[in-house]
Amino acid sequence: MDPAIAEFRVGEFAGATYSPFTDDGLSLNLDAIGPYAAFLASKGLHCVFINGTSGESMSLSEAERKAITERWVAEGAKQSPRIRVVAHIGCDSLTATCELARHAQEVGVDAISSMAPVMLKPTSAAELAGWLKHVCAAAPRTPFYYYHFPAITGIGVNPLSILRAVEAARIPQFRGFKFTDYSLFDYERCVTHAGGAYEICYGRDDALLGGIATGATSHIGNGFCFMIGPFKRIKAAVARGDLAAARKEQAMVNRVVEVMGDPAFGSGLAASKAMQALRGVPVGPVRLPIRALDAAAMTLLRARLDALGFFDWCD
Amino acid sequence: MDPAIAEFRVGEFAGATYSPFTDDGLSLNLDAIGPYAAFLASKGLHCVFINGTSGESMSLSEAERKAITERWVAEGAKQSPRIRVVAHIGCDSLTATCELARHAQEVGVDAISSMAPVMLKPTSAAELAGWLKHVCAAAPRTPFYYYHFPAITGIGVNPLSILRAVEAARIPQFRGFKFTDYSLFDYERCVTHAGGAYEICYGRDDALLGGIATGATSHIGNGFCFMIGPFKRIKAAVARGDLAAARKEQAMVNRVVEVMGDPAFGSGLAASKAMQALRGVPVGPVRLPIRALDAAAMTLLRARLDALGFFDWCD
Amino acid sequence: MDPAIAEFRVGEFAGATYSPFTDDGLSLNLDAIGPYAAFLASKGLHCVFINGTSGESMSLSEAERKAITERWVAEGAKQSPRIRVVAHIGCDSLTATCELARHAQEVGVDAISSMAPVMLKPTSAAELAGWLKHVCAAAPRTPFYYYHFPAITGIGVNPLSILRAVEAARIPQFRGFKFTDYSLFDYERCVTHAGGAYEICYGRDDALLGGIATGATSHIGNGFCFMIGPFKRIKAAVARGDLAAARKEQAMVNRVVEVMGDPAFGSGLAASKAMQALRGVPVGPVRLPIRALDAAAMTLLRARLDALGFFDWCD
Amino acid sequence: MDPAIAEFRVGEFAGATYSPFTDDGLSLNLDAIGPYAAFLASKGLHCVFINGTSGESMSLSEAERKAITERWVAEGAKQSPRIRVVAHIGCDSLTATCELARHAQEVGVDAISSMAPVMLKPTSAAELAGWLKHVCAAAPRTPFYYYHFPAITGIGVNPLSILRAVEAARIPQFRGFKFTDYSLFDYERCVTHAGGAYEICYGRDDALLGGIATGATSHIGNGFCFMIGPFKRIKAAVARGDLAAARKEQAMVNRVVEVMGDPAFGSGLAASKAMQALRGVPVGPVRLPIRALDAAAMTLLRARLDALGFFDWCD
Repeated sequence: MDPAIAEFRVGEFAGATYSPFTDDGLSLNLDAIGPYAAFLASKGLHCVFINGTSGESMSLSEAERKAITERWVAEGAKQSPRIRVVAHIGCDSLTATCELARHAQEVGVDAISSMAPVMLKPTSAAELAGWLKHVCAAAPRTPFYYYHFPAITGIGVNPLSILRAVEAARIPQFRGFKFTDYSLFDYERCVTHAGGAYEICYGRDDALLGGIATGATSHIGNGFCFMIGPFKRIKAAVARGDLAAARKEQAMVNRVVEVMGDPAFGSGLAASKAMQALRGVPVGPVRLPIRALDAAAMTLLRARLDALGFFDWCD
Repeated sequence: MDPAIAEFRVGEFAGATYSPFTDDGLSLNLDAIGPYAAFLASKGLHCVFINGTSGESMSLSEAERKAITERWVAEGAKQSPRIRVVAHIGCDSLTATCELARHAQEVGVDAISSMAPVMLKPTSAAELAGWLKHVCAAAPRTPFYYYHFPAITGIGVNPLSILRAVEAARIPQFRGFKFTDYSLFDYERCVTHAGGAYEICYGRDDALLGGIATGATSHIGNGFCFMIGPFKRIKAAVARGDLAAARKEQAMVNRVVEVMGDPAFGSGLAASKAMQALRGVPVGPVRLPIRALDAAAMTLLRARLDALGFFDWCD
Repeated sequence: MDPAIAEFRVGEFAGATYSPFTDDGLSLNLDAIGPYAAFLASKGLHCVFINGTSGESMSLSEAERKAITERWVAEGAKQSPRIRVVAHIGCDSLTATCELARHAQEVGVDAISSMAPVMLKPTSAAELAGWLKHVCAAAPRTPFYYYHFPAITGIGVNPLSILRAVEAARIPQFRGFKFTDYSLFDYERCVTHAGGAYEICYGRDDALLGGIATGATSHIGNGFCFMIGPFKRIKAAVARGDLAAARKEQAMVNRVVEVMGDPAFGSGLAASKAMQALRGVPVGPVRLPIRALDAAAMTLLRARLDALGFFDWCD
Repeated sequence: MDPAIAEFRVGEFAGATYSPFTDDGLSLNLDAIGPYAAFLASKGLHCVFINGTSGESMSLSEAERKAITERWVAEGAKQSPRIRVVAHIGCDSLTATCELARHAQEVGVDAISSMAPVMLKPTSAAELAGWLKHVCAAAPRTPFYYYHFPAITGIGVNPLSILRAVEAARIPQFRGFKFTDYSLFDYERCVTHAGGAYEICYGRDDALLGGIATGATSHIGNGFCFMIGPFKRIKAAVARGDLAAARKEQAMVNRVVEVMGDPAFGSGLAASKAMQALRGVPVGPVRLPIRALDAAAMTLLRARLDALGFFDWCD
């Protein structure tokens, strides 16, 4: 291990946070980050993944991403234990991604992460690794996680081949993946590769039990930000060999995921972000092109959560 | 339960069989079915899913599908205990599918199964259920399983919505799914729906551990035909709470799946069918448009399996 | 040119016909073919492409396809001049496709055509050509046209590369394409390849003017079956250098295509088949999985056509 | 027409320019823009579309896009007649897009253009129009063109429905489309909509003849930057009714497009950008994730162009 590169592991549940906006969705509401950090800390979340898909990364300007990063580092440090910050810095532009990487290291994040460019997609693992090597060179002391989320990026490069290409390209700070996909075949290949040398954080919270059974120990996902309770109980149940209990908790999670996916709420991301507000953290609406829930939809969402008893078991 | 409809559950591992061809791939080699049935029975497989994707259903003529069905029913009956037969009868044509259903019931299969039409795809669960209702009416006393395999059919209809549409359409012989997909979110939704009333047979053998952890107890897949050993050991390990042992067996399976997926072998299905031949069951090559392995590829495949110690642990 | 292979060129407009069904869509109404042939002949259509996509080929059984072919050959022969018959014989099964090819030659079609398998898709032009070679060997004296319709088949093999692979595979009866795609780049490549040796029949009737400008002289499409008038006028206008008149006719066609594509009618194919009935040819409804227009939809369709003055200019 | 909004029409051929990079692809080479503008003006190109797909828009940072815009406005003004500048300002972030729009208007571009967000895609024309309305509000006096390029953006919203949604949303500065797609059905619908009120600039230069036949009079494309000759001759030939001559010119263009698309050159965009350098305009290589041509590939490209006689007829 290169001593110039910081030690880091996600090692537990990390919350993929929402970006806080004003009511019109057009400006940042940075002052929401302090209470947001305090909320997560109070629920036992001590690591965040900021400016990811849930954080509407692609809907932010470069300046907005920097501002959010700075505030999370500052507010995370105020918690006890402090909240560690993984900053997603990926965007389509190599130069912008590198500048965000440089900035993130400068302001003291714990790790960075990037997806691949989505419009001019890399067509091979080698191309992708070449791109990642440039990105990592801009923040050479900071641990790096590749963000694998094929359903939204359309990047078809096989994840195991990415690990191999990264090894060939020699990127010493490479630590693993945020792995957001249902394929537990691909997951198993990555998590056992090289004797388990990589931290492959499983990110599909609606299939968490399957991921844990297959070997996942670290997790990055947005559901952890507003309903950490059942996920912790799934993990504990598996640890004590009680799969029946784990299934019951996963089922409760999935009933909530079903509600959020109801077309009545438009975009699933809009409903998911609304969950955070319903937990009392005022992160505001989503930004266009996604449409936010109107007042009637918010009322309906709360009613359906109540019907599930959500507020009694979410923590 | 309608007493006119036979009782049936897959209830265990069912092998999705390969269709036996002559060496040129152009004709059936029906005489291979007897030894095939004996082989599977000797390995503890007592249920088969014939004429499915592994069976190159779409590459068969209607007459060929009927001939295979008749022989499997006959040869299955000779085993002790007899091998139960689920016949996949789906094709794009409603009239052909109905005729295959009628024939399958007539010759005495235990259950039938169908995927949806793949060229003129149903665009909603209601459309799909309407199609299935017609199909089932042609074999009204025979239990039915819908074949869900979106990666190959491109049918984007949500599986839970299919269950609901089938309920609305009233198809009394509907029993469940052959569920061949990685989404354990969709799987959980189906397997717990209606208090677990449906038998949702999990079919991704390279992710079997995740499926079992999520609640799967029945399985239909082609890997069971040539390496049942590790799958049975995964199931047993989970049952006794030893996930570490289960992961080790799943990893062994997945190393074989990786070998079969090597582009050196062309189509994964060609390599997978070759596995059956390498186990001593002469099912012959695949049929065009898929290209069969040549002799050099067969030698390479065997060598790579040897390197994994495959033949020592496959049973 | 091999003297054993019949001379043939589409050479003009060929109508891609609908398959005649009884009112429930479940049986053939073969007796509709006689009046259908007489109708087309009276409108100046002297060539048909039967059992294609518009003919719901994939929704027919093998026996149904044979029966339709036999009747069209018989009824076509009764017209003066006789209607020439191109039979689409492609399906996913190589053995079924070969049998349909053999039968089509036996009963005396003028040419055959096949798309590629759509479920187990060929992954290269060479694979596809290998498949086509087998198909053509079953009807060796009959001219052959490949059916290129990527939007519905999902076959991504480049059309020019198919021509080259067919040349390498030596298929002497290969004559050209039914080319149903908007890419006039691909079209130009094929129609000028080998000094214009192939007959590349342009099939997008809603973009016919662009195809003709780019060099198309032969055409296969379903619109010709119910509104040949504007297409003939487009061709004549281009021939006399009057693009403005050609655009006006294309615009009239496209207003009809828009009507047929209205979601109010469900599937575009259902509405398109209904056009034939509205012209007085009783081909019946579409078959499941496509839903037919109900009476209210038929009334609406007729009213919208009336509003366009369709019945005054369609011939 | 709102008098506060500038008059503007593309009205002719507009060149979709490449962004000038240093040899490592990592920095801008803004000094290349002066000679680039002079080259285009000398060839008769008096309008440019900057920072589009050919300009690797998504690979640029916001600051880089601004810098390129400023320089093009300045250098365009030095030509006689001056080169008019259409600035593509679209990116995934609404706030960044609005800031780029504001800046573009401030520095004096003639028009702006934007594609839709590609990661969180609008799912309806209304959603897209709502997004565009916000963008346009940031540059309210500047004419706007929507950039339709579904093959690369994956935006499936029908283009005619976009026009209708824009009308409903009331965006007075909306002028038309950069329409980069092969569907001449969609093209005809847009160009004739509302009595031809919109300027729908046809952008598929490898199918230009079809577009012109269908009614296109304005064009935006990258091929115009390095081989304007054949395109002007196509247009002239169509105008004088000589389609045979037009086809011959289109064929010459397409032989070049085939060369650029050869997998030997990796990305087609890399080869296309190299064409500009081969015409003596030092715009440098492409930026990662696209791989640039190495020296051997450049030599090969030049040799293949020589074999076509390209340099004799490109102007």
